[in-house]
Amino acid sequence: MQLGILYGIGVGPGDPELITLKGLRLLQRVPVVAYPAGVSSKPGMAEQIISQWLDYEKIQLPLKFPYVQDRAVLSQAWQEGARQILPYLQHGQDVAFVCEGDISFYSTFNYLANCMRQLHGAVNIQLVPGISSPMAAAAAAGIPLTMGDRRLAVLPALYAVEELENVLNWADVVVLMKVSSVYPQVWQVLHRRKLLEKAYVVERATWPDQRLYNDLGSRSQLKLSYFSVLIVNRN
Amino acid sequence: MQLGILYGIGVGPGDPELITLKGLRLLQRVPVVAYPAGVSSKPGMAEQIISQWLDYEKIQLPLKFPYVQDRAVLSQAWQEGARQILPYLQHGQDVAFVCEGDISFYSTFNYLANCMRQLHGAVNIQLVPGISSPMAAAAAAGIPLTMGDRRLAVLPALYAVEELENVLNWADVVVLMKVSSVYPQVWQVLHRRKLLEKAYVVERATWPDQRLYNDLGSRSQLKLSYFSVLIVNRN
Repeated sequence: MQLGILYGIGVGPGDPELITLKGLRLLQRVPVVAYPAGVSSKPGMAEQIISQWLDYEKIQLPLKFPYVQDRAVLSQAWQEGARQILPYLQHGQDVAFVCEGDISFYSTFNYLANCMRQLHGAVNIQLVPGISSPMAAAAAAGIPLTMGDRRLAVLPALYAVEELENVLNWADVVVLMKVSSVYPQVWQVLHRRKLLEKAYVVERATWPDQRLYNDLGSRSQLKLSYFSVLIVNRN
Repeated sequence: MQLGILYGIGVGPGDPELITLKGLRLLQRVPVVAYPAGVSSKPGMAEQIISQWLDYEKIQLPLKFPYVQDRAVLSQAWQEGARQILPYLQHGQDVAFVCEGDISFYSTFNYLANCMRQLHGAVNIQLVPGISSPMAAAAAAGIPLTMGDRRLAVLPALYAVEELENVLNWADVVVLMKVSSVYPQVWQVLHRRKLLEKAYVVERATWPDQRLYNDLGSRSQLKLSYFSVLIVNRN
């Protein structure tokens, strides 16, 4: 029997209407959809985004990826996820793994895909891009993310604040993903460099409870959701 | 009469199926769609992407933005574009301006939107994000663009090759937009730094004539389309 295809589909930042037509078509066509399971009985982000697009016949595979930094624990979870998906592929069924945002931009899918390649080298893996949160945040704010000859830098969730100093010397536009845990330190750097006027934060971009903060001068402390993006445009 | 809304819609990198549901819904709902006119009687990129989604009743406004660097000439073209759109808004009709890729990521829409704000301060402008070419290129290559704690940098079309040296000292992943004109110099830098193995080029990502080059060691010269992205991942 021919192996099924494993699709990695980015379903966008939150608004279910920000999935692509291709993503939706494949999602509705495949018999099996996998996604990161939510925590403490709440559905995960990707699961929430696609819930309105699924019918009751779809086989759903919530995969448990613990929210830890320990590589060994994570690696075991990804391997277990790949092992859960493989039997469906071996029965010729296509499987879609969905994640919020874009599938190639700080997504967990790559780890899962690597485990799948190790488990069964012949599996055909196809990626479908999605709208990532920096683009969604810029659109929500009504401000260009970057334009003309500006250089853009993106720093991921885990970074040292010194990195921000370095990158502000180089880039014209800087995006800080998942800024909540380091916001007070970031605020100090932007304050010192007189960049608070040129920065804004978007929390949970395109979700119904989205919040936009663009008057950061008076906000040295902000209690932000984990899914918050800060954008600073030096020009 | 209430003013119409001006939507800026990113329609994705090329494959018409990579538009979002929201982008398509608005595009089909508005009576007027504007886009950058093509050159030498060929339709423009955004126009090609949306052509299958338009019916014959839609009013189409191809706006002429000359392919020049001269800011005064461009500024006049954007003002003229805004002037062409305004009467429809004043008659209460919504207008969609579409561009390829994402609306906030190196898009011309921002210039047009600024001209519109100067022309008529009360116009409501809404942005709808789209899939940008780096994400599309990574998905086409089946490779993550960036992951984990990697720092990402994007250099736009016009950059000095020395910039590439600087950014390679800082970023883990570097995206060079519209690399065609500087490809031979870029190749030399990557060769010297032994990074050719870790780089790939995607030409016209997701178009039917998409090409992927990932064996750059033997390709010191490449005749590339203007719409080519180079991605180098140092890790």
